[in-house]
Amino acid sequence: MPTEDLQRRVRALRRRLGKLHIDALILTQPADVAYLTGFAGEDSWAVVAGSAVYLLTDSRYIEQAQKECPLAKIVERKDPIAQAAGKLATKLKSARTIAVDKAISLAQYETLKKSVGTRLRGASGLVEDLRSVKDESELATIRSAAAIAAGAFQRAVLQARPGITESELAGILDLEMRRQDAKVSFETIVAFGPNASRPHHQPSQRVLRERDTILIDFGAKYNGYCCDITRSFAFGKPTAAYSRAYEVVERAQAAAIRAAKAGAELVEVDAAARNAIRESGLPVYGHGTGHGFGLEIHESPFLKEQAKGRLQAGQVITIEPGVYLPGKLGIRIEDDILITDRGCEILTGACPRRPPW
Amino acid sequence: MPTEDLQRRVRALRRRLGKLHIDALILTQPADVAYLTGFAGEDSWAVVAGSAVYLLTDSRYIEQAQKECPLAKIVERKDPIAQAAGKLATKLKSARTIAVDKAISLAQYETLKKSVGTRLRGASGLVEDLRSVKDESELATIRSAAAIAAGAFQRAVLQARPGITESELAGILDLEMRRQDAKVSFETIVAFGPNASRPHHQPSQRVLRERDTILIDFGAKYNGYCCDITRSFAFGKPTAAYSRAYEVVERAQAAAIRAAKAGAELVEVDAAARNAIRESGLPVYGHGTGHGFGLEIHESPFLKEQAKGRLQAGQVITIEPGVYLPGKLGIRIEDDILITDRGCEILTGACPRRPPW
Repeated sequence: MPTEDLQRRVRALRRRLGKLHIDALILTQPADVAYLTGFAGEDSWAVVAGSAVYLLTDSRYIEQAQKECPLAKIVERKDPIAQAAGKLATKLKSARTIAVDKAISLAQYETLKKSVGTRLRGASGLVEDLRSVKDESELATIRSAAAIAAGAFQRAVLQARPGITESELAGILDLEMRRQDAKVSFETIVAFGPNASRPHHQPSQRVLRERDTILIDFGAKYNGYCCDITRSFAFGKPTAAYSRAYEVVERAQAAAIRAAKAGAELVEVDAAARNAIRESGLPVYGHGTGHGFGLEIHESPFLKEQAKGRLQAGQVITIEPGVYLPGKLGIRIEDDILITDRGCEILTGACPRRPPW
Repeated sequence: MPTEDLQRRVRALRRRLGKLHIDALILTQPADVAYLTGFAGEDSWAVVAGSAVYLLTDSRYIEQAQKECPLAKIVERKDPIAQAAGKLATKLKSARTIAVDKAISLAQYETLKKSVGTRLRGASGLVEDLRSVKDESELATIRSAAAIAAGAFQRAVLQARPGITESELAGILDLEMRRQDAKVSFETIVAFGPNASRPHHQPSQRVLRERDTILIDFGAKYNGYCCDITRSFAFGKPTAAYSRAYEVVERAQAAAIRAAKAGAELVEVDAAARNAIRESGLPVYGHGTGHGFGLEIHESPFLKEQAKGRLQAGQVITIEPGVYLPGKLGIRIEDDILITDRGCEILTGACPRRPPW
């Protein structure tokens, strides 16, 4: 992580904290910690207080933290983490208001409260908001993740053959990402035939048959950054019903992509895709139309009905409408886009929509 | 999941709730929800109230919930989950005290509190305690997970050759587990040479060299249940320093396994391994000696210094001492054991300690 990026992020956070009269902020979520310190490990919290950033970690991670964190003061803890954070906070004598991100568990909040007392309050999503607009180094990493995913997808689907199981095809795809120095962004979904009607189907021992359909929802995680792609296609010749539904989903996705630009309301982009499905007479999907991603696979903003807010330039989001007919078929098409002032740029176009068979 | 097991678990929980004067309990953690309902999906909470168990889920999971949950009343939510749980709780008119597991986030607790008001309180680990002693169906599944892991390990390490990367070997091992209908219990760790000195090393593009050493920490997750194994070995002929440290770790592990039985204090088992390392003059590891596992990879009990409590028959735990010399070597040997009245049974003995080269 470039040191200047870390410095800029800490400065931006300090400005926000200043406006909210918060003197110190305790961060418990790995993505927030990584964003402000560069640390990629687990079980560690960050504390931002004045111009200082502390990384609270344990002996397992000291070596790694020293490598990854050019700015943070590394504090080795022996106590359970909330207790250790409490001790650190009590030393911040000049901090009158200490906030902790409300993603903290109630149990850990209570432990912290015991040390910090009335100076402690909760705060929501202050770093997640900053994280939603990506800087250049983050975009470069996300582009790499998307390129790795596209390559892995092409090599993996060529290994699909009648008799292969959903699980094995998922494993082959994951291995292809590993071979390119990436991990999975989330557990790969591979669904054959009607299994695809469950949007969160888990790969099973179901085998691929001639003239089956395949849905693959996957992402590469590269240098800490995710991407998220879904492809749906027929293994042989698709049925007329499948082809028709596929066209509807493509149309819905294109409508949302056309609507996506800086300043567009989240509900507007969501509605663009949803309306296209509704007009076709097919059932409207029950999930959101898309979501931000980055250090986490799901982060702000969220495109869904009743969402509040507008898209901003520099945000990266998925657009992923679908059609699900239980017992019959499931189709979802998902691409990642970068929001720009004039529209958006598709980041996952290199991942083919149909394999070469 | 056998219906009788679910019934027995709910009865056991209701007895505990009765003693604590809790009329209803809201569970937010996927493992707790799975334990009481059989549901294997995500983003769903369970509410136990009197003789009823509710599963609060959304449209994506209705089909799956109907298949997996023979006992629970399935409630489809449209609202965010904490809000939906609040609505459900307000309908439980006769419940004077409603508890929620303290693993809930502070943000969700506050949302819940708004609906439930003063009837709401926190409760810690009530279901996690029950989960630590496994029933027969759980043990059978864990045995299957261990068998799958052992087979996958043997097939994967045969593919280790000079030039392979840590990442690729990790991917091959994961694929071998996938081929047997399992997933990973956690992100597989493969560390070559001195990389193994970081207990939580992430597989990298570091290539395997002649006379390298290998550490692999991995587990298969089968039907929702984990196992957790670490093997450390030399790819060629080990150095004298490696062989000596290996023997120390083996001795430490054997000492802890000898000490492990129903009624043994957690600190006593932890100390057995730690003392064996200390006596050798090598540095004592900074992590715990072991932990329970099951639906989650880390669950109660935890074997560490200052741990309170005793082992119980039916618990399954890891025993995993190590020796770490930064920049030089890392060795950890980890097996899973079932605690019995007379001692323990090793569940992962089928996973060879040294590959056949």
